[in-house]
Amino acid sequence: MMHSEVKVNEIRAAVDAEMKQVVDDCIPGEYGGMRPLLAYHLGWEGEGAGVEAQGKRVRPTLVCLCAAAAGGNWKLALPAAAAVELIHNFSLVHDDIQDQSPLRRGRQTVWVKWGTPQAINAGDLLFTLAFSALGRLRAQFSSEMVLEAQQVLQTTCIYLTGGQYLDLAYESQRTLPAEAYWPMIGGKTAALLACCAELGALTALAGAEQRRKFHEFGQKLGMAFQVQDDWLGIWGDAARTGKSTASDLVSGKKTLPVVFALQKRAAFAERWLRGPLEPQEVAQMARLLEEEGARHFTEETADRLTQEAMHALEQTGGDVDGTRALLHLAETLLRREN
Amino acid sequence: MMHSEVKVNEIRAAVDAEMKQVVDDCIPGEYGGMRPLLAYHLGWEGEGAGVEAQGKRVRPTLVCLCAAAAGGNWKLALPAAAAVELIHNFSLVHDDIQDQSPLRRGRQTVWVKWGTPQAINAGDLLFTLAFSALGRLRAQFSSEMVLEAQQVLQTTCIYLTGGQYLDLAYESQRTLPAEAYWPMIGGKTAALLACCAELGALTALAGAEQRRKFHEFGQKLGMAFQVQDDWLGIWGDAARTGKSTASDLVSGKKTLPVVFALQKRAAFAERWLRGPLEPQEVAQMARLLEEEGARHFTEETADRLTQEAMHALEQTGGDVDGTRALLHLAETLLRREN
Repeated sequence: MMHSEVKVNEIRAAVDAEMKQVVDDCIPGEYGGMRPLLAYHLGWEGEGAGVEAQGKRVRPTLVCLCAAAAGGNWKLALPAAAAVELIHNFSLVHDDIQDQSPLRRGRQTVWVKWGTPQAINAGDLLFTLAFSALGRLRAQFSSEMVLEAQQVLQTTCIYLTGGQYLDLAYESQRTLPAEAYWPMIGGKTAALLACCAELGALTALAGAEQRRKFHEFGQKLGMAFQVQDDWLGIWGDAARTGKSTASDLVSGKKTLPVVFALQKRAAFAERWLRGPLEPQEVAQMARLLEEEGARHFTEETADRLTQEAMHALEQTGGDVDGTRALLHLAETLLRREN
Repeated sequence: MMHSEVKVNEIRAAVDAEMKQVVDDCIPGEYGGMRPLLAYHLGWEGEGAGVEAQGKRVRPTLVCLCAAAAGGNWKLALPAAAAVELIHNFSLVHDDIQDQSPLRRGRQTVWVKWGTPQAINAGDLLFTLAFSALGRLRAQFSSEMVLEAQQVLQTTCIYLTGGQYLDLAYESQRTLPAEAYWPMIGGKTAALLACCAELGALTALAGAEQRRKFHEFGQKLGMAFQVQDDWLGIWGDAARTGKSTASDLVSGKKTLPVVFALQKRAAFAERWLRGPLEPQEVAQMARLLEEEGARHFTEETADRLTQEAMHALEQTGGDVDGTRALLHLAETLLRREN
């Protein structure tokens, strides 16, 4: 694993260098005052800046590793890698406003530091810079290919807003039909990972079928990741994930364990439907979820999705080293080891 | 003028049809719940829907008229026209949240009806749909040209966020250096009109110099329009514009008359710098502005910018009929006759 570890660190540094270049090249001098908001949010500057604040850069790494696995040169995929990370961060900045989250990775969120209006605007800027970043593929690829990449990212953004729409729409309700869960996480999480894998393959000039398999790999991986995140939001170690284990149950988030337990119509559902939980009820409600099989079901679902992701990955016909690096990324992602 | 009037109405209908097609084609069924927010904001559906609620559609009309003036077919410019109108509406939805405006064109704003989180998300969707709309140029134009158009729109969006950044940044201050006024309105208003004119010319396959002149025409027109809007915000007829004449002075907006009077350091500045105005002070403060020459200066500036816009328009070398239609649009825009 030594080899791919080195490469992942190299990719990480290259992605941040690429994003910095986009930010510096694209923001005109008279609007330079916007830069600190982005640099802070991206973990480059300000209180608590550094690798910890930057997050794992999983999405751009996925782009580059898929490019390599599909037979391409990961360095040529950097504009696409920067683009997906900028889109991811646009959605985080807006999410934090929508959820009124005061902290992200242990640091104050942009809206807390600069106010909601400037935070909305900073998110909008990240969004447009993502497309500027993607446009830099023009230096190495045909116009047709770059337009194709733009379209993949645009479609993804529609899914992102769709998933967010469902999430917000159901947040004000206490019930959620089980079948609405998948479009919600499909849009919020899986669509962007599918986009990463597909864009990586695209920069390797993969054929339609190979692109489709990479897309499927990313999508299943994303679903597995989100189900795992739902699990962590209830049973995770708060210190390691940086968020309170209480928050998902208190905020009324419709996670898979909750959706599962609501269908059971047992003790958990009975209490849940009566209204918001108090923080002191959380431990007991988490125990109820476990007793009613929600924990087991969630773990089983995460495992199944992981296997489906791995199966799609095998079918991409990617090269052995590249596939191994992707497997390693998927493992660390799902086990949250980094 | 009969001929161009007819064409403007035809363009208007075609632009809305194009936008509807983008909205219907691009939003997947499982996320169809987002459609009503867009259809309401765009004035197609819901309470008070109709031509009045839709606004003047000035920007897409400008795209189409510039396409025709540059020797192109305005119908081929419709994807670009829809794109700029969607971008404009994305910025309105987010602006209304940022300014906490309860009303837009006499109707409740999206954030008032659906809450801030959903309104942020609806704005994000309009943003991404604008790029989807622009991508529809692919049906008729080369990939190179479509990428060029994407880049023009992307750059414009950076200016839009830049102008908004300055506007918000200075809103919390009582003073504003006069030289910051122009990048602010350049970004908030003129950049998008410049983009409209340039995209129109681009769809007519105009050369670099002609494109530049169309860009300049749009930009000067935009500046003239904003200066005029600043004037209306203080001296306009509230009933005709649909907003309170009091609001710009009470909200502390840094309009050109205010920026001018602050430099004078006379009675207006003295009161203004002491803190927010009460509604009952507005009439007296507007009189002070006039006595200190701010009204005259604002009118003179609007006239100068209008002339510069007309000069750039002449230099585009566009066809006579097309140029006449653009002049008519510019006149109605600046006189607010429609």
